[in-house]
Amino acid sequence: MSHFQPVALGHASRLVNHGPTVLITSRSADGTRRNVMAAAWSMPVEFTPPRIALVIDKRTYTRELVAESGVFGICIPGVALCDITYAVGSESGREVDKFARHGIEWQPDATLGVPLIEAGCAAWLACRLIPEPHAQDAYDTCFGEVLSASADARVFAQGRWSFRDDNTALQTIHHLGAGNFAHAGRTLQAKAST
Amino acid sequence: MSHFQPVALGHASRLVNHGPTVLITSRSADGTRRNVMAAAWSMPVEFTPPRIALVIDKRTYTRELVAESGVFGICIPGVALCDITYAVGSESGREVDKFARHGIEWQPDATLGVPLIEAGCAAWLACRLIPEPHAQDAYDTCFGEVLSASADARVFAQGRWSFRDDNTALQTIHHLGAGNFAHAGRTLQAKAST
Repeated sequence: MSHFQPVALGHASRLVNHGPTVLITSRSADGTRRNVMAAAWSMPVEFTPPRIALVIDKRTYTRELVAESGVFGICIPGVALCDITYAVGSESGREVDKFARHGIEWQPDATLGVPLIEAGCAAWLACRLIPEPHAQDAYDTCFGEVLSASADARVFAQGRWSFRDDNTALQTIHHLGAGNFAHAGRTLQAKAST
Repeated sequence: MSHFQPVALGHASRLVNHGPTVLITSRSADGTRRNVMAAAWSMPVEFTPPRIALVIDKRTYTRELVAESGVFGICIPGVALCDITYAVGSESGREVDKFARHGIEWQPDATLGVPLIEAGCAAWLACRLIPEPHAQDAYDTCFGEVLSASADARVFAQGRWSFRDDNTALQTIHHLGAGNFAHAGRTLQAKAST
Protein backbone atom coordinates (compact mmCIF):
# COMPACT_ATOMS: atom_id res chain seq x y z
CA MET A 1 0.00 0.00 0.00
CA SER A 2 1.34 3.39 -1.01
CA HIS A 3 1.57 6.11 1.60
CA PHE A 4 1.86 8.79 -1.07
CA GLN A 5 -0.56 11.69 -0.88
CA PRO A 6 -0.87 14.68 -3.23
CA VAL A 7 1.08 17.79 -2.24
CA ALA A 8 -0.58 21.16 -2.85
CA LEU A 9 1.30 23.02 -5.58
CA GLY A 10 1.81 25.94 -3.20
CA HIS A 11 3.85 23.60 -1.01
CA ALA A 12 5.88 21.98 -3.78
CA SER A 13 8.97 24.15 -3.28
CA ARG A 14 9.27 22.87 0.28
CA LEU A 15 10.06 19.41 -1.04
CA VAL A 16 13.41 20.63 -2.36
CA ASN A 17 13.95 23.74 -0.21
CA HIS A 18 16.53 22.00 1.99
CA GLY A 19 18.73 20.83 -0.87
CA PRO A 20 18.25 17.08 -1.16
CA THR A 21 19.99 15.08 -3.84
CA VAL A 22 17.33 13.98 -6.32
CA LEU A 23 16.70 11.46 -9.05
CA ILE A 24 15.77 12.97 -12.41
CA THR A 25 13.53 10.72 -14.45
CA SER A 26 12.86 11.12 -18.15
CA ARG A 27 11.26 9.48 -21.17
CA SER A 28 11.48 9.68 -24.92
CA ALA A 29 8.79 11.54 -26.86
CA ASP A 30 7.07 8.27 -27.77
CA GLY A 31 7.41 6.86 -24.25
CA THR A 32 9.30 3.74 -25.30
CA ARG A 33 12.62 4.71 -23.67
CA ARG A 34 13.22 6.07 -20.20
CA ASN A 35 16.05 6.93 -17.87
CA VAL A 36 16.95 7.93 -14.33
CA MET A 37 20.00 9.80 -13.09
CA ALA A 38 21.09 11.36 -9.81
CA ALA A 39 21.47 15.13 -9.48
CA ALA A 40 22.74 17.09 -6.51
CA TRP A 41 22.33 20.44 -8.23
CA SER A 42 18.75 21.68 -8.10
CA MET A 43 16.80 24.45 -6.38
CA PRO A 44 13.37 26.05 -6.37
CA VAL A 45 13.20 29.41 -8.14
CA GLU A 46 9.55 30.38 -7.56
CA PHE A 47 6.77 29.48 -5.13
CA THR A 48 3.74 30.19 -7.36
CA PRO A 49 3.66 28.88 -9.97
CA PRO A 50 6.11 26.36 -8.52
CA ARG A 51 9.25 26.41 -10.62
CA ILE A 52 12.59 24.77 -10.16
CA ALA A 53 16.03 24.92 -11.75
CA LEU A 54 18.36 21.98 -12.09
CA VAL A 55 21.64 21.23 -13.78
CA ILE A 56 21.58 18.45 -16.37
CA ASP A 57 24.85 18.05 -18.25
CA LYS A 58 24.27 18.39 -22.00
CA ARG A 59 26.21 15.18 -22.64
CA THR A 60 23.79 13.01 -20.65
CA TYR A 61 21.09 10.74 -22.00
CA THR A 62 18.68 12.40 -19.58
CA ARG A 63 19.27 15.77 -21.24
CA GLU A 64 18.60 14.25 -24.66
CA LEU A 65 15.32 12.72 -23.47
CA VAL A 66 14.18 15.88 -21.68
CA ALA A 67 14.90 17.98 -24.78
CA GLU A 68 12.91 15.50 -26.86
CA SER A 69 9.87 15.08 -24.61
CA GLY A 70 9.78 18.43 -22.79
CA VAL A 71 8.98 16.76 -19.47
CA PHE A 72 10.84 15.25 -16.52
CA GLY A 73 10.29 13.93 -13.04
CA ILE A 74 12.12 14.79 -9.84
CA CYS A 75 12.04 11.95 -7.32
CA ILE A 76 13.47 12.50 -3.86
CA PRO A 77 15.20 9.38 -2.60
CA GLY A 78 15.31 8.45 1.06
CA VAL A 79 18.14 6.75 2.92
CA ALA A 80 16.81 3.41 1.65
CA LEU A 81 17.80 4.37 -1.90
CA CYS A 82 21.25 5.75 -1.07
CA ASP A 83 23.22 3.00 -2.82
CA ILE A 84 21.01 3.12 -5.92
CA THR A 85 21.17 6.92 -6.05
CA TYR A 86 24.93 6.76 -6.08
CA ALA A 87 24.93 4.00 -8.68
CA VAL A 88 22.59 5.74 -11.16
CA GLY A 89 24.74 8.85 -10.87
CA SER A 90 27.71 7.04 -12.36
CA GLU A 91 26.13 4.98 -15.15
CA SER A 92 24.76 6.05 -18.53
CA GLY A 93 21.25 5.18 -19.63
CA ARG A 94 22.61 4.92 -23.15
CA GLU A 95 24.35 1.72 -22.12
CA VAL A 96 22.04 0.15 -19.55
CA ASP A 97 18.38 0.21 -18.49
CA LYS A 98 19.01 1.45 -14.98
CA PHE A 99 15.46 0.73 -13.81
CA ALA A 100 15.86 -2.93 -14.74
CA ARG A 101 19.44 -3.25 -13.57
CA HIS A 102 18.68 -1.98 -10.07
CA GLY A 103 15.11 -3.29 -9.79
CA ILE A 104 13.73 0.24 -9.42
CA GLU A 105 9.93 0.21 -9.28
CA TRP A 106 8.26 3.02 -11.23
CA GLN A 107 4.97 3.98 -12.82
CA PRO A 108 4.24 6.64 -15.44
CA ASP A 109 2.81 9.93 -14.28
CA ALA A 110 -0.88 10.06 -15.24
CA THR A 111 -0.55 13.34 -17.12
CA LEU A 112 3.03 13.68 -18.34
CA GLY A 113 4.00 10.04 -18.63
CA VAL A 114 7.37 10.55 -16.93
CA PRO A 115 8.52 7.62 -14.78
CA LEU A 116 7.89 8.25 -11.10
CA ILE A 117 9.47 6.31 -8.27
CA GLU A 118 7.63 5.88 -4.98
CA ALA A 119 9.25 2.81 -3.39
CA GLY A 120 12.17 4.14 -1.36
CA CYS A 121 11.42 7.76 -2.19
CA ALA A 122 10.03 10.45 0.08
CA ALA A 123 8.35 12.49 -2.66
CA TRP A 124 8.17 13.30 -6.36
CA LEU A 125 7.43 16.27 -8.60
CA ALA A 126 6.26 15.96 -12.22
CA CYS A 127 7.54 18.85 -14.33
CA ARG A 128 7.29 20.49 -17.71
CA LEU A 129 10.50 21.92 -19.15
CA ILE A 130 10.44 25.68 -19.67
CA PRO A 131 12.68 26.10 -22.73
CA GLU A 132 15.51 28.52 -21.96
CA PRO A 133 18.11 27.87 -24.65
CA HIS A 134 20.76 30.25 -23.30
CA ALA A 135 20.73 28.99 -19.69
CA GLN A 136 20.64 25.40 -20.95
CA ASP A 137 23.58 26.00 -23.25
CA ALA A 138 25.75 28.23 -21.06
CA TYR A 139 25.13 26.69 -17.63
CA ASP A 140 23.43 23.33 -18.30
CA THR A 141 20.66 24.87 -16.19
CA CYS A 142 17.15 23.71 -17.03
CA PHE A 143 14.07 25.44 -15.68
CA GLY A 144 10.85 23.56 -15.10
CA GLU A 145 7.35 24.13 -13.85
CA VAL A 146 5.94 21.66 -11.36
CA LEU A 147 2.56 20.40 -12.55
CA SER A 148 1.92 17.90 -9.77
CA ALA A 149 3.64 16.62 -6.65
CA SER A 150 3.17 13.88 -4.10
CA ALA A 151 4.88 12.80 -0.90
CA ASP A 152 4.94 9.90 1.51
CA ALA A 153 2.74 11.07 4.36
CA ARG A 154 4.98 9.33 6.86
CA VAL A 155 7.67 11.96 6.24
CA PHE A 156 5.89 14.95 4.61
CA ALA A 157 2.32 15.96 5.44
CA GLN A 158 0.32 19.20 5.62
CA GLY A 159 3.12 20.94 3.77
CA ARG A 160 5.84 20.04 6.27
CA TRP A 161 8.72 17.62 6.53
CA SER A 162 8.87 15.56 9.70
CA PHE A 163 12.14 13.69 10.15
CA ARG A 164 12.00 11.31 13.09
CA ASP A 165 13.80 8.24 14.38
CA ASP A 166 10.95 6.07 13.08
CA ASN A 167 11.27 7.22 9.46
CA THR A 168 15.01 7.07 8.85
CA ALA A 169 14.59 5.10 5.62
CA LEU A 170 12.63 8.01 4.12
CA GLN A 171 14.93 10.80 5.28
CA THR A 172 16.32 12.86 2.42
CA ILE A 173 19.97 12.43 1.45
CA HIS A 174 22.41 15.20 0.55
CA HIS A 175 25.52 14.25 -1.39
CA LEU A 176 28.78 15.43 0.16
CA GLY A 177 30.96 13.79 -2.51
CA ALA A 178 32.41 10.39 -3.34
CA GLY A 179 29.30 8.51 -2.21
CA ASN A 180 29.19 10.12 1.21
CA PHE A 181 25.78 11.57 2.06
CA ALA A 182 24.39 13.56 4.95
CA HIS A 183 20.81 12.66 5.78
CA ALA A 184 18.20 14.86 7.33
CA GLY A 185 17.83 13.05 10.61
CA ARG A 186 18.56 15.86 13.01
CA THR A 187 16.50 19.02 13.13
CA LEU A 188 16.39 22.18 15.17
CA GLN A 189 13.98 25.08 15.49
CA ALA A 190 15.26 28.64 15.22
CA LYS A 191 14.11 31.03 17.89
CA ALA A 192 11.95 33.79 16.47
CA SER A 193 13.72 37.13 16.33
CA THR A 194 12.68 39.67 18.95
CA MET B 1 42.22 32.26 16.32
CA SER B 2 40.58 31.48 13.00
CA HIS B 3 40.46 27.89 11.82
CA PHE B 4 39.70 28.98 8.27
CA GLN B 5 41.93 27.64 5.52
CA PRO B 6 41.77 28.36 1.78
CA VAL B 7 39.73 25.90 -0.30
CA ALA B 8 41.09 24.99 -3.75
CA LEU B 9 38.78 26.42 -6.41
CA GLY B 10 38.34 22.92 -7.85
CA HIS B 11 36.72 21.93 -4.56
CA ALA B 12 34.51 25.00 -4.15
CA SER B 13 31.37 23.33 -5.49
CA ARG B 14 31.54 20.76 -2.70
CA LEU B 15 30.85 23.48 -0.17
CA VAL B 16 27.29 23.86 -1.46
CA ASN B 17 26.80 20.48 -3.18
CA HIS B 18 24.61 19.16 -0.35
CA GLY B 19 22.18 22.08 -0.37
CA PRO B 20 22.89 24.11 2.75
CA THR B 21 20.99 27.29 3.48
CA VAL B 22 23.43 30.17 3.04
CA LEU B 23 23.92 33.80 3.96
CA ILE B 24 24.35 36.13 0.98
CA THR B 25 26.50 39.13 1.80
CA SER B 26 26.72 42.24 -0.32
CA ARG B 27 28.08 45.78 -0.42
CA SER B 28 27.43 49.01 -2.29
CA ALA B 29 29.75 50.03 -5.12
CA ASP B 30 31.58 52.47 -2.84
CA GLY B 31 31.73 49.99 0.04
CA THR B 32 29.97 52.24 2.55
CA ARG B 33 26.79 50.12 2.80
CA ARG B 34 26.48 46.38 3.24
CA ASN B 35 23.88 43.73 3.87
CA VAL B 36 23.32 40.08 4.69
CA MET B 37 20.30 37.90 3.94
CA ALA B 38 19.49 34.20 4.18
CA ALA B 39 18.88 32.15 1.05
CA ALA B 40 17.83 28.53 0.81
CA TRP B 41 17.80 28.53 -2.98
CA SER B 42 21.29 28.07 -4.41
CA MET B 43 23.22 25.41 -6.29
CA PRO B 44 26.52 24.89 -8.10
CA VAL B 45 26.26 24.90 -11.89
CA GLU B 46 29.87 24.20 -12.90
CA PHE B 47 32.96 22.66 -11.31
CA THR B 48 35.67 24.51 -13.28
CA PRO B 49 35.54 27.42 -13.32
CA PRO B 50 33.44 27.13 -10.16
CA ARG B 51 30.10 28.75 -10.81
CA ILE B 52 26.95 28.88 -8.78
CA ALA B 53 23.35 29.98 -9.25
CA LEU B 54 21.20 31.48 -6.54
CA VAL B 55 17.82 33.10 -6.27
CA ILE B 56 17.77 36.68 -5.00
CA ASP B 57 14.34 38.31 -5.13
CA LYS B 58 14.47 41.49 -7.19
CA ARG B 59 12.70 43.42 -4.44
CA THR B 60 15.47 42.84 -1.89
CA TYR B 61 18.16 45.28 -0.81
CA THR B 62 20.71 42.53 -1.46
CA ARG B 63 19.71 42.38 -5.12
CA GLU B 64 20.09 46.16 -5.39
CA LEU B 65 23.57 46.04 -3.86
CA VAL B 66 24.70 43.07 -5.99
CA ALA B 67 23.50 44.80 -9.16
CA GLU B 68 25.39 47.93 -8.15
CA SER B 69 28.69 46.33 -7.09
CA GLY B 70 28.75 43.17 -9.23
CA VAL B 71 30.03 41.07 -6.33
CA PHE B 72 28.62 39.03 -3.45
CA GLY B 73 29.65 36.60 -0.76
CA ILE B 74 28.14 33.25 0.14
CA CYS B 75 28.69 32.36 3.79
CA ILE B 76 27.63 28.94 5.03
CA PRO B 77 26.26 29.16 8.56
CA GLY B 78 26.62 26.36 11.06
CA VAL B 79 24.15 25.31 13.72
CA ALA B 80 25.56 28.06 15.94
CA LEU B 81 24.10 30.70 13.59
CA CYS B 82 20.68 29.08 13.14
CA ASP B 83 18.73 31.78 15.00
CA ILE B 84 20.57 34.61 13.24
CA THR B 85 20.14 32.95 9.84
CA TYR B 86 16.40 32.79 10.38
CA ALA B 87 16.31 36.37 11.64
CA VAL B 88 18.22 37.91 8.72
CA GLY B 89 15.91 36.08 6.33
CA SER B 90 12.92 38.03 7.59
CA GLU B 91 14.34 41.55 7.99
CA SER B 92 15.24 44.13 5.34
CA GLY B 93 18.65 45.75 5.22
CA ARG B 94 16.94 48.88 3.99
CA GLU B 95 15.56 49.34 7.49
CA VAL B 96 18.23 47.95 9.78
CA ASP B 97 21.97 47.24 9.79
CA LYS B 98 21.66 43.51 10.35
CA PHE B 99 25.36 43.06 11.12
CA ALA B 100 25.12 45.56 13.98
CA ARG B 101 21.72 44.43 15.20
CA HIS B 102 22.78 40.80 15.58
CA GLY B 103 26.43 41.39 16.45
CA ILE B 104 27.59 39.52 13.35
CA GLU B 105 31.38 39.68 13.01
CA TRP B 106 32.62 40.21 9.46
CA GLN B 107 35.63 41.40 7.52
CA PRO B 108 35.89 42.54 3.90
CA ASP B 109 37.21 40.08 1.36
CA ALA B 110 40.74 41.11 0.40
CA THR B 111 39.98 41.21 -3.31
CA LEU B 112 36.28 41.90 -3.77
CA GLY B 113 35.52 43.79 -0.58
CA VAL B 114 32.34 41.82 0.12
CA PRO B 115 31.63 41.20 3.81
CA LEU B 116 32.64 37.69 4.85
CA ILE B 117 31.52 35.98 8.04
CA GLU B 118 33.73 33.40 9.71
CA ALA B 119 32.52 33.31 13.32
CA GLY B 120 29.77 30.70 13.41
CA CYS B 121 30.17 29.81 9.74
CA ALA B 122 31.61 26.65 8.24
CA ALA B 123 32.85 28.24 5.01
CA TRP B 124 32.54 31.15 2.59
CA LEU B 125 32.83 31.80 -1.14
CA ALA B 126 33.60 35.22 -2.64
CA CYS B 127 31.89 35.65 -6.01
CA ARG B 128 31.64 37.89 -9.02
CA LEU B 129 28.20 38.29 -10.58
CA ILE B 130 27.94 37.00 -14.15
CA PRO B 131 25.36 39.36 -15.65
CA GLU B 132 22.46 37.38 -17.12
CA PRO B 133 19.63 39.88 -17.48
CA HIS B 134 17.00 37.40 -18.67
CA ALA B 135 17.53 34.80 -15.91
CA GLN B 136 17.71 37.57 -13.33
CA ASP B 137 14.50 39.12 -14.57
CA ALA B 138 12.44 36.01 -15.31
CA TYR B 139 13.55 33.74 -12.45
CA ASP B 140 15.39 36.01 -9.99
CA THR B 141 18.26 33.62 -10.70
CA CYS B 142 21.73 35.13 -10.45
CA PHE B 143 24.82 33.34 -11.72
CA GLY B 144 28.20 33.93 -10.15
CA GLU B 145 31.78 32.80 -10.48
CA VAL B 146 33.62 31.83 -7.31
CA LEU B 147 36.93 33.71 -7.13
CA SER B 148 38.05 32.45 -3.72
CA ALA B 149 36.77 30.17 -0.98
CA SER B 150 37.72 29.21 2.54
CA ALA B 151 36.46 26.77 5.15
CA ASP B 152 36.86 25.99 8.82
CA ALA B 153 39.29 23.08 8.83
CA ARG B 154 37.46 21.52 11.77
CA VAL B 155 34.54 20.67 9.46
CA PHE B 156 35.92 20.84 5.87
CA ALA B 157 39.49 19.88 4.95
CA GLN B 158 41.25 18.36 1.95
CA GLY B 159 38.15 18.99 -0.12
CA ARG B 160 35.80 17.01 2.14
CA TRP B 161 33.14 17.71 4.71
CA SER B 162 33.50 15.86 7.99
CA PHE B 163 30.43 16.10 10.21
CA ARG B 164 31.05 14.62 13.63
CA ASP B 165 29.64 14.79 17.15
CA ASP B 166 32.45 17.14 18.15
CA ASN B 167 31.67 19.78 15.51
CA THR B 168 27.89 20.13 15.78
CA ALA B 169 28.08 23.93 16.01
CA LEU B 170 29.66 24.03 12.54
CA GLN B 171 27.32 21.55 10.86
CA THR B 172 25.48 23.04 7.89
CA ILE B 173 21.79 23.85 8.25
CA HIS B 174 19.08 23.19 5.67
CA HIS B 175 15.84 25.14 5.96
CA LEU B 176 12.71 23.00 5.99
CA GLY B 177 10.35 25.95 6.47
CA ALA B 178 9.06 28.18 9.26
CA GLY B 179 12.39 28.26 11.09
CA ASN B 180 12.77 24.50 11.20
CA PHE B 181 16.15 23.30 9.93
CA ALA B 182 17.71 19.92 9.33
CA HIS B 183 21.41 19.87 10.11
CA ALA B 184 24.03 17.65 8.59
CA GLY B 185 24.89 15.61 11.64
CA ARG B 186 24.24 12.14 10.30
CA THR B 187 26.09 10.72 7.36
CA LEU B 188 26.20 7.44 5.46
CA GLN B 189 28.43 5.97 2.78
CA ALA B 190 26.90 4.50 -0.35
CA LYS B 191 28.16 1.10 -1.39
CA ALA B 192 29.99 1.24 -4.68
CA SER B 193 27.98 -0.29 -7.52
CA THR B 194 29.16 -3.69 -8.74
